[in-house]
Amino acid sequence: MKILVLHGPNLNLLGERDPEIYGNASLPELNKKIEAWARGLNMIVDIRQSNHEGELIDWIHESRTLASGIVLNAGALTHTSQALRDAIDAVGVPTVEVHLSNIHAREEFRKVSMIAPACIGSISGFKELSYHLALIALKELGLTRLKVV
Amino acid sequence: MKILVLHGPNLNLLGERDPEIYGNASLPELNKKIEAWARGLNMIVDIRQSNHEGELIDWIHESRTLASGIVLNAGALTHTSQALRDAIDAVGVPTVEVHLSNIHAREEFRKVSMIAPACIGSISGFKELSYHLALIALKELGLTRLKVV
Amino acid sequence: MKILVLHGPNLNLLGERDPEIYGNASLPELNKKIEAWARGLNMIVDIRQSNHEGELIDWIHESRTLASGIVLNAGALTHTSQALRDAIDAVGVPTVEVHLSNIHAREEFRKVSMIAPACIGSISGFKELSYHLALIALKELGLTRLKVV
Amino acid sequence: MKILVLHGPNLNLLGERDPEIYGNASLPELNKKIEAWARGLNMIVDIRQSNHEGELIDWIHESRTLASGIVLNAGALTHTSQALRDAIDAVGVPTVEVHLSNIHAREEFRKVSMIAPACIGSISGFKELSYHLALIALKELGLTRLKVV
Amino acid sequence: MKILVLHGPNLNLLGERDPEIYGNASLPELNKKIEAWARGLNMIVDIRQSNHEGELIDWIHESRTLASGIVLNAGALTHTSQALRDAIDAVGVPTVEVHLSNIHAREEFRKVSMIAPACIGSISGFKELSYHLALIALKELGLTRLKVV
Amino acid sequence: MKILVLHGPNLNLLGERDPEIYGNASLPELNKKIEAWARGLNMIVDIRQSNHEGELIDWIHESRTLASGIVLNAGALTHTSQALRDAIDAVGVPTVEVHLSNIHAREEFRKVSMIAPACIGSISGFKELSYHLALIALKELGLTRLKVV
Amino acid sequence: MKILVLHGPNLNLLGERDPEIYGNASLPELNKKIEAWARGLNMIVDIRQSNHEGELIDWIHESRTLASGIVLNAGALTHTSQALRDAIDAVGVPTVEVHLSNIHAREEFRKVSMIAPACIGSISGFKELSYHLALIALKELGLTRLKVV
Amino acid sequence: MKILVLHGPNLNLLGERDPEIYGNASLPELNKKIEAWARGLNMIVDIRQSNHEGELIDWIHESRTLASGIVLNAGALTHTSQALRDAIDAVGVPTVEVHLSNIHAREEFRKVSMIAPACIGSISGFKELSYHLALIALKELGLTRLKVV
Amino acid sequence: MKILVLHGPNLNLLGERDPEIYGNASLPELNKKIEAWARGLNMIVDIRQSNHEGELIDWIHESRTLASGIVLNAGALTHTSQALRDAIDAVGVPTVEVHLSNIHAREEFRKVSMIAPACIGSISGFKELSYHLALIALKELGLTRLKVV
Amino acid sequence: MKILVLHGPNLNLLGERDPEIYGNASLPELNKKIEAWARGLNMIVDIRQSNHEGELIDWIHESRTLASGIVLNAGALTHTSQALRDAIDAVGVPTVEVHLSNIHAREEFRKVSMIAPACIGSISGFKELSYHLALIALKELGLTRLKVV
Amino acid sequence: MKILVLHGPNLNLLGERDPEIYGNASLPELNKKIEAWARGLNMIVDIRQSNHEGELIDWIHESRTLASGIVLNAGALTHTSQALRDAIDAVGVPTVEVHLSNIHAREEFRKVSMIAPACIGSISGFKELSYHLALIALKELGLTRLKVV
Amino acid sequence: MKILVLHGPNLNLLGERDPEIYGNASLPELNKKIEAWARGLNMIVDIRQSNHEGELIDWIHESRTLASGIVLNAGALTHTSQALRDAIDAVGVPTVEVHLSNIHAREEFRKVSMIAPACIGSISGFKELSYHLALIALKELGLTRLKVV
Repeated sequence: MKILVLHGPNLNLLGERDPEIYGNASLPELNKKIEAWARGLNMIVDIRQSNHEGELIDWIHESRTLASGIVLNAGALTHTSQALRDAIDAVGVPTVEVHLSNIHAREEFRKVSMIAPACIGSISGFKELSYHLALIALKELGLTRLKVV
Repeated sequence: MKILVLHGPNLNLLGERDPEIYGNASLPELNKKIEAWARGLNMIVDIRQSNHEGELIDWIHESRTLASGIVLNAGALTHTSQALRDAIDAVGVPTVEVHLSNIHAREEFRKVSMIAPACIGSISGFKELSYHLALIALKELGLTRLKVV
Repeated sequence: MKILVLHGPNLNLLGERDPEIYGNASLPELNKKIEAWARGLNMIVDIRQSNHEGELIDWIHESRTLASGIVLNAGALTHTSQALRDAIDAVGVPTVEVHLSNIHAREEFRKVSMIAPACIGSISGFKELSYHLALIALKELGLTRLKVV
Repeated sequence: MKILVLHGPNLNLLGERDPEIYGNASLPELNKKIEAWARGLNMIVDIRQSNHEGELIDWIHESRTLASGIVLNAGALTHTSQALRDAIDAVGVPTVEVHLSNIHAREEFRKVSMIAPACIGSISGFKELSYHLALIALKELGLTRLKVV
Repeated sequence: MKILVLHGPNLNLLGERDPEIYGNASLPELNKKIEAWARGLNMIVDIRQSNHEGELIDWIHESRTLASGIVLNAGALTHTSQALRDAIDAVGVPTVEVHLSNIHAREEFRKVSMIAPACIGSISGFKELSYHLALIALKELGLTRLKVV
Repeated sequence: MKILVLHGPNLNLLGERDPEIYGNASLPELNKKIEAWARGLNMIVDIRQSNHEGELIDWIHESRTLASGIVLNAGALTHTSQALRDAIDAVGVPTVEVHLSNIHAREEFRKVSMIAPACIGSISGFKELSYHLALIALKELGLTRLKVV
Repeated sequence: MKILVLHGPNLNLLGERDPEIYGNASLPELNKKIEAWARGLNMIVDIRQSNHEGELIDWIHESRTLASGIVLNAGALTHTSQALRDAIDAVGVPTVEVHLSNIHAREEFRKVSMIAPACIGSISGFKELSYHLALIALKELGLTRLKVV
Repeated sequence: MKILVLHGPNLNLLGERDPEIYGNASLPELNKKIEAWARGLNMIVDIRQSNHEGELIDWIHESRTLASGIVLNAGALTHTSQALRDAIDAVGVPTVEVHLSNIHAREEFRKVSMIAPACIGSISGFKELSYHLALIALKELGLTRLKVV
Repeated sequence: MKILVLHGPNLNLLGERDPEIYGNASLPELNKKIEAWARGLNMIVDIRQSNHEGELIDWIHESRTLASGIVLNAGALTHTSQALRDAIDAVGVPTVEVHLSNIHAREEFRKVSMIAPACIGSISGFKELSYHLALIALKELGLTRLKVV
Repeated sequence: MKILVLHGPNLNLLGERDPEIYGNASLPELNKKIEAWARGLNMIVDIRQSNHEGELIDWIHESRTLASGIVLNAGALTHTSQALRDAIDAVGVPTVEVHLSNIHAREEFRKVSMIAPACIGSISGFKELSYHLALIALKELGLTRLKVV
Repeated sequence: MKILVLHGPNLNLLGERDPEIYGNASLPELNKKIEAWARGLNMIVDIRQSNHEGELIDWIHESRTLASGIVLNAGALTHTSQALRDAIDAVGVPTVEVHLSNIHAREEFRKVSMIAPACIGSISGFKELSYHLALIALKELGLTRLKVV
Repeated sequence: MKILVLHGPNLNLLGERDPEIYGNASLPELNKKIEAWARGLNMIVDIRQSNHEGELIDWIHESRTLASGIVLNAGALTHTSQALRDAIDAVGVPTVEVHLSNIHAREEFRKVSMIAPACIGSISGFKELSYHLALIALKELGLTRLKVV
């Protein structure tokens, strides 16, 4: 059971940017925790980061043959990219949207998620823990795609 | 460690209404699962349901002396009640917003959460599992309130 | 054949408030007429009034075992309550929305009905007669719920 | 006592278009029912259909000397024609707006009625029965125009 | 020097509708005044009224060979008809927009003129006198089309 | 001369919530001051608090026989409740809207008052003193309702 | 195989109005080309023009027994007529929307097509050639209506 | 019979600014024409120009004892000044709004007139002639204020 | 203890303009009352009126060395002047916004106050009494500026 | 005569994603058809696909020396990319916008095309055939750029 | 080579108001720096400040014979004054808009510049240095007006 | 002292595209000037161009160790990219936004800058000179980041 974990633009700077919002750990530190959480759940994770919308789309396409679930933190692309949404929609792999901060409690433009309509669920505001919850969710759901309503 | 679990308007009809969205289990069945999950996490839950906004506010106020965390599914009040938001804000007890369906993937009016800015995080779309994830989140966060950004 | 007739907030003041809009009869007088109309149609009516959104929702829930149709004048909650709409939607009892005044001909905020999408039809502007028309409609429709489009 | 019944654009195709919304009867069949309902109420009806906004306005003008009430289903012109509204307003003949489907429960653009502010009341969603209710309303109101609020 | 004077929908009811807004004179009485004013200015007027948008467009097209100026009171079509605007734009005959009432001082929907961008000028609020001023304007301008800015 | 003083949702938590906005005194302490101010003005006050919109409406209805004026701090219901506004409108008892904080200087959603159109005046921003000013206003106005414009 | 080609308001002035947008050919000249293109594709065309919305609707209704496809340039009615859209929707004859100019590259109000949701496709910006492409499209599609998404 | 003619901001630069919109004559030249037109109508004009909103308001206030009518070209203040509108409203002297260019045919922000609701009528687009038409209007209306609707 | 009382545009016409909204007293009469109220509170008032936004700004600037509080009725500038707001903000003198009428109960454009975010509080709707309440407020607050939230 | 055919994001998944909207053929299958259609028209096509906005811009820049026309299906970037529009605008190579589905008949966000103002025309809704029509259009237009209006 | 430097409303309070936004220097101190910078660039500056929109317009008009360039900090009038924009537009003297703070990074209402469309360029956010950059820009541009696009 | 100068999408076509807006020089020619200006200011510049949003983000991240300031012309991404804004925000290197044309004087969609809230200042409209001014600004500010307000 393999999960693709995708970090979007600027998440490579984790730990440097607004630590009161995003936490103090760096991306490699976060990734280590994600790997540990995955092992604890008997899952394999393939973790990647890109600042390029096109690359994220390519990876989502790859997931068709590669993974049985996606955990996606699309960063600021969450609010502007219809193409990411179409990509998730097209591959049909169960995808969970995660955010470190509670995007519904920040600036107006961060409250709208373009990608949500293509995801099975959304977890937002629990800092690093958001990723753990997403893995648990994919585990418990048994990776059979829920009907998105 | 006691958690107040609040179900808002119409959730008492669970299992009868749009099962393809909300699942087939009734509210007593869901509550049994929540209690089991809580036991598994060494937590005590106090579960209540009301169709009255005022009663939900009263219970949130009660939580100050009663509980160290709140799991709140405010139903349709999520989208219209500023008073609920002010209540959460006022008591300062860490609150997790949950939804059975992915509200960001439904009708326009269901995409806006009035209560989100007062919650530490939001979990939406995982059906009954949403409540399990919320309990885990409160457990792992140690119930120390995160700064809402 | 039993019909639940629900009057929402402020309708208990009927006859005192803006009689040029709402007519001169008091609520008890209106209720007498409704009972007479019902008898004339061989129907039984159970008439209630509340200023509490939660109580109206509770009564709509009750209607599942109690009534084969609902006539609902939700007063100002018509324009703000998503929870009422979800309640009607959830119980599946055929509901007719009525208004004494023509809400589409008044202030902007009274032109939008939040509950309409869950009702089989809407009657507005015929003063007390609106209730009579609603009873006739439920009678003639045979109380088999029409598909709401 | 004579009533002008006006059907607007596309209602001549009744029975062919979206029968799950508009019913299976053709316009001549509906008109027969309207005539029967009118006879039952001791009313005479003059029924006409046009796809031309201008012709509908001409007929409304004619009603000043011809009829003591109007039942108007303006079809899609309901949502776009200020000129129809001005026509009803100008002639001062009591007019009831009817719709086969519940327009408040359909697409956004069908929720706004341009003509409502000039009508005494609005009946929407009861299929063919909407016309019967409109005739009853005009009968019971005694055709004295109510003050439009 | 011939001027086409066009009255739009519902202006045939002049004198009957809201006399405090539109004045007491009937359309034939207004037309007599317009003819007298025209004679006083050494102009010939061809006055027509229609409730049909299409007929008004046909007449505007006719004006190319018929008239050296148009005075247009489009009634409620002022606010909804892009086709009228395109017609004026296409024929290139200098057109003055007139209104009996001051449309900028009435309901919101009457403040927007769809046809104004194709007219050389607009006169609004002087009741019958609006037509006189329009004729004077066309006279003094010598009917050479001003550049519409 | 009796005045009904109504506190809306969450005001029972006064002194605990955002003291830099709402002040440090608890609700019982505030009520004591209000009673003292009333005595100084030779008025009797009946002070109540509820988190239930319906209960506030019930009390406003009661005021018809009970009080000659209302001081209303509707809390967050100020911004969402059309039913409260209709209640004030219906009873015709002179009502003064008060707020502890200057609602016009806070978040966008707090700048709109749904109830203002039914009140004779509005006092906002003077903390506890807002209530004193409201009592003085009702006193000096002699409790004859001013025409609301 | 017969195609109904409909030109809407003001297209009878083709060649006179803004030739840099609409080209220099007159409507009879354009119609000759359309007939030639149709012959080349082994199709029969029935070409009509009207400035009357109602007449266009009548013709679309006629198409049910007359034609196996419609090519429609609705002119300015494209942007304002819901009744045209309902007409196309009701008859179920495959319809292609054409425009001489690229409406998406002009004034804001010309970017919205009210009729598009009822058409199988839209061709815009190729001047006279737009009609040729529409005929080819209907030919190649074999006139079996595509599902409109 | 004395008329106050007021030119607002930037009209002192007439003849220098965009002559294709505003014409070639300077303000003194325009004022000479206005004086001649007034003489021809047996009226006396008092013409003033200011770039100061406050000064224009002062002059409108002065008009109460000074003039029996106002011709006002408020320049860009037309679109932003509620205070000018209140001034016209307060003095009750019949006021005609004039514009050299057709403001309804220019940029979006120039289509809204803040002062129109307080004026008896509006004349726009006839360049210098707009002032002549305004004087004629005031003359023929006999300076009895029309009811503004 | 000296207070600057500023009246904005058109308030010099008090008593002449819409007396049902603004009362019957003239400005000098109102000023006499204000002076009497001030004496009763042991305060000195310096009362000024101007129709010029710039002059009001100059006076607010002056208040830094002149006064310990400002009572400001900005008239229609309330709704359009960001510069007034910046002026109040810049001088830091406690300012109370007053209005004779309840601006929240009038036309839409009068519901928005541009200056409120810089004021400690707002009093609206009590006619002349609004000024008395403002003086009492400044007195009781001890003129120490409250934190504007 | 060489044409650059560009497929935007997610089009590489053609045949897998929503076949009822986009058809059953895969991208290689579609490309084969395009090549065949091009040969039939005596054109050479250079077909490329990318999920990267930047790469699409690079290719459009390349077209200056490479191609005499562009057929562009920008996928979801159609609705969000101003940079693509500027690219087309900058190179001046005649570009035809194509879509498999009728974008004007789908979700709201898909109705707006950011790139349309830089294209000579738009073809939408004919599935694979859209590409054939685009090639024919470029052929018949002789590849001399039309003035974009 | 003479430059008119204009400071708008509230800039006379520089150094007192929000020093973390506007810097600590007073206006005389800033003016000294501007004079020094001008001397270093071989330019003469005429520096003025006013809180009156009308006076700023008068000075801009004066600039026609007085100056070969304008540096304008319009303060809060930047966001509300169409009259200032028309003034700059009318005189045709090259004008550079400056702001001490980065207006694009502050409150929503400060992000819109009404005057920008009439200026050759805009410099915002560099505190006092903004003026220096504006002088350099006017110097290097040689004061020949660039075409405003 | 090293400055990173970044050119966004389509700037590689400089000199070919709309020279009346963007000037006649090519990008290499502009870069030469930038280098000369930098030398004159004793600065070193590292100049790059990309049509890829992701690449621009990567370079901004690189700047943390590479440069003490950024000059950024983001081209059309200025108006759509929240990710670029987050990148600037995250690295904390002082960034100046530059534009060749005055974006505030062009199409509506070009007036909004997504990246401005993360920049210390913005320079717009001075063609090539905009870059020179940006370098001077960074020089004079001493590259200590100003607080963004």
